[in-house]
Amino acid sequence: MIVEVTPTLLLVLELTGTFVFGLNGALTAMEAERLDLVGVIVLGMMTALGGGIVRDVLIGALPPATFRDWRYLTVALVSAVVAFLGRRYLSRVTRSINLLDAAGLSLFCVTGTVVAYAHGLGPFQSTILGAITGVGGGTIRDVIIRRVPTVLTSGLYAVPALVGAAITAVTLNLHVYDAAVALAEAFVCFTIRLVGLHFNLNVPTAHLPKGGDGQDDRR
Amino acid sequence: MIVEVTPTLLLVLELTGTFVFGLNGALTAMEAERLDLVGVIVLGMMTALGGGIVRDVLIGALPPATFRDWRYLTVALVSAVVAFLGRRYLSRVTRSINLLDAAGLSLFCVTGTVVAYAHGLGPFQSTILGAITGVGGGTIRDVIIRRVPTVLTSGLYAVPALVGAAITAVTLNLHVYDAAVALAEAFVCFTIRLVGLHFNLNVPTAHLPKGGDGQDDRR
Amino acid sequence: MIVEVTPTLLLVLELTGTFVFGLNGALTAMEAERLDLVGVIVLGMMTALGGGIVRDVLIGALPPATFRDWRYLTVALVSAVVAFLGRRYLSRVTRSINLLDAAGLSLFCVTGTVVAYAHGLGPFQSTILGAITGVGGGTIRDVIIRRVPTVLTSGLYAVPALVGAAITAVTLNLHVYDAAVALAEAFVCFTIRLVGLHFNLNVPTAHLPKGGDGQDDRR
Repeated sequence: MIVEVTPTLLLVLELTGTFVFGLNGALTAMEAERLDLVGVIVLGMMTALGGGIVRDVLIGALPPATFRDWRYLTVALVSAVVAFLGRRYLSRVTRSINLLDAAGLSLFCVTGTVVAYAHGLGPFQSTILGAITGVGGGTIRDVIIRRVPTVLTSGLYAVPALVGAAITAVTLNLHVYDAAVALAEAFVCFTIRLVGLHFNLNVPTAHLPKGGDGQDDRR
Repeated sequence: MIVEVTPTLLLVLELTGTFVFGLNGALTAMEAERLDLVGVIVLGMMTALGGGIVRDVLIGALPPATFRDWRYLTVALVSAVVAFLGRRYLSRVTRSINLLDAAGLSLFCVTGTVVAYAHGLGPFQSTILGAITGVGGGTIRDVIIRRVPTVLTSGLYAVPALVGAAITAVTLNLHVYDAAVALAEAFVCFTIRLVGLHFNLNVPTAHLPKGGDGQDDRR
Repeated sequence: MIVEVTPTLLLVLELTGTFVFGLNGALTAMEAERLDLVGVIVLGMMTALGGGIVRDVLIGALPPATFRDWRYLTVALVSAVVAFLGRRYLSRVTRSINLLDAAGLSLFCVTGTVVAYAHGLGPFQSTILGAITGVGGGTIRDVIIRRVPTVLTSGLYAVPALVGAAITAVTLNLHVYDAAVALAEAFVCFTIRLVGLHFNLNVPTAHLPKGGDGQDDRR
């Protein structure tokens, strides 16, 4: 049932995404809370592996690749340790946390789409699963450290993931997907995300005043 | 392995539940946080689709119906957009958020039970899975926006879902389940929930004073 | 595909772990929030069953054992009710919440490893899945009541789970796993956890000052 789509390329993109998300999660852990080394590693690994695990659960590819291929766990572990050891240097790099997050988002929206498509899902469904893969790790990270997930607060987080996933699905469907195309697609997502971050762009907002109703049985 | 239980009825109930939960999630997003259109849509879709996805993962029906049938994603998307565009009108309707939540709870506790039963689970397990389907979307919504889930704070949230699911399982087991019965079962759940909301009813409460022990390694 | 590893022993350990985690979750619910009986039961059952459900989803053993064997749900329900009824006595027992948590952690890191190994996963992957099973229930509990999960804040929470899981995987691989060995392995995990709690031990910590960067589109 699984169609391998240039497996080496896929693995390289997956492991690179895992590494940058692991750095991001570990740095976020050190910035957000006073966590010890184990806490930093755990949050780094959750961020690095969460999106891919959610994707594999949803497409029924169980156990997830994370547990079938030792390289995922190893890369995620190494990335968190690197972030811990190099925290002073890494945190000085301006916007490094957001850059790493954008890089992971871009790589995972492409690989997530490819894996879903290779499992026989249609282009539309593969796009949605690709976007979920991209935003999944960061969303788990934010929920765990009690932050409203970026995917809700920043309009240009889900959108670049959906765009990157959609063009990946189209190129897969047209049989023109290859390494150069994959990198270009990740770059498109990355660029949209960075433009959004730089100009603090958001799509139209709406806020309802809290009404008096409906609050009676909630804290 | 899958026994189809009047599939058209099931689909209508599922999509109606998806629509009302999508409205609810999107309205909750606009009430709780200053979110942009994308955030409102993402939370609306998570609320609409979360319960069914959790159910399908737990019964091993992968990929979940959400990703096999384009109508789920479409209805969820439309409901969130409708909520965004009609937010001024919808938020004026008294208790509209709670009514929509109760409607989704009622429909999903019935359909969740039916789907689990159709997958060969026993009546008891189908009841539990039906209740999980009912409360799942709202629980994910609450966790994501950092609210203690309604299923914990309101006694009459899990109970109506369990009652609705249990009577659905009984009628399935007795082969008397049909469209009228399904609607009656959803109505029972809906009524119990509304009675609980109206009278702010809760079951006995208990609260322990925070002891001095056990807090040493937590924030 | 499933190799049964002394199923009676496994079941006894699993149900004991379920019981103590159910007590812990219910007591935590009563300590942390003003919840009613249903809320206490729901959080108790989530804590008791969460780790095993996550494990079964990840290894693809669906539906999870929780829904295949009525004893899990029953034991979890009974434990939460016992905690509710005996709350005054149980909360007086010093550190009882942490002791119960440590006991559940210890039992589940062993059984989680055994179940994963019996499903054909390698020793390394079984170790990771065992540790996830151990920390899973408590992590779900903490996220639901909006606490930073213990697995992040307490260094000696993930570490004893990993140690207990690792020695379990080794003894399974060497075919020397039996009841006495299983109890000894759970005891090792339990002891490390208690030593960490008693001396408030943690591994090296790191905290980055919040920079001015990267915060622009988050609350």
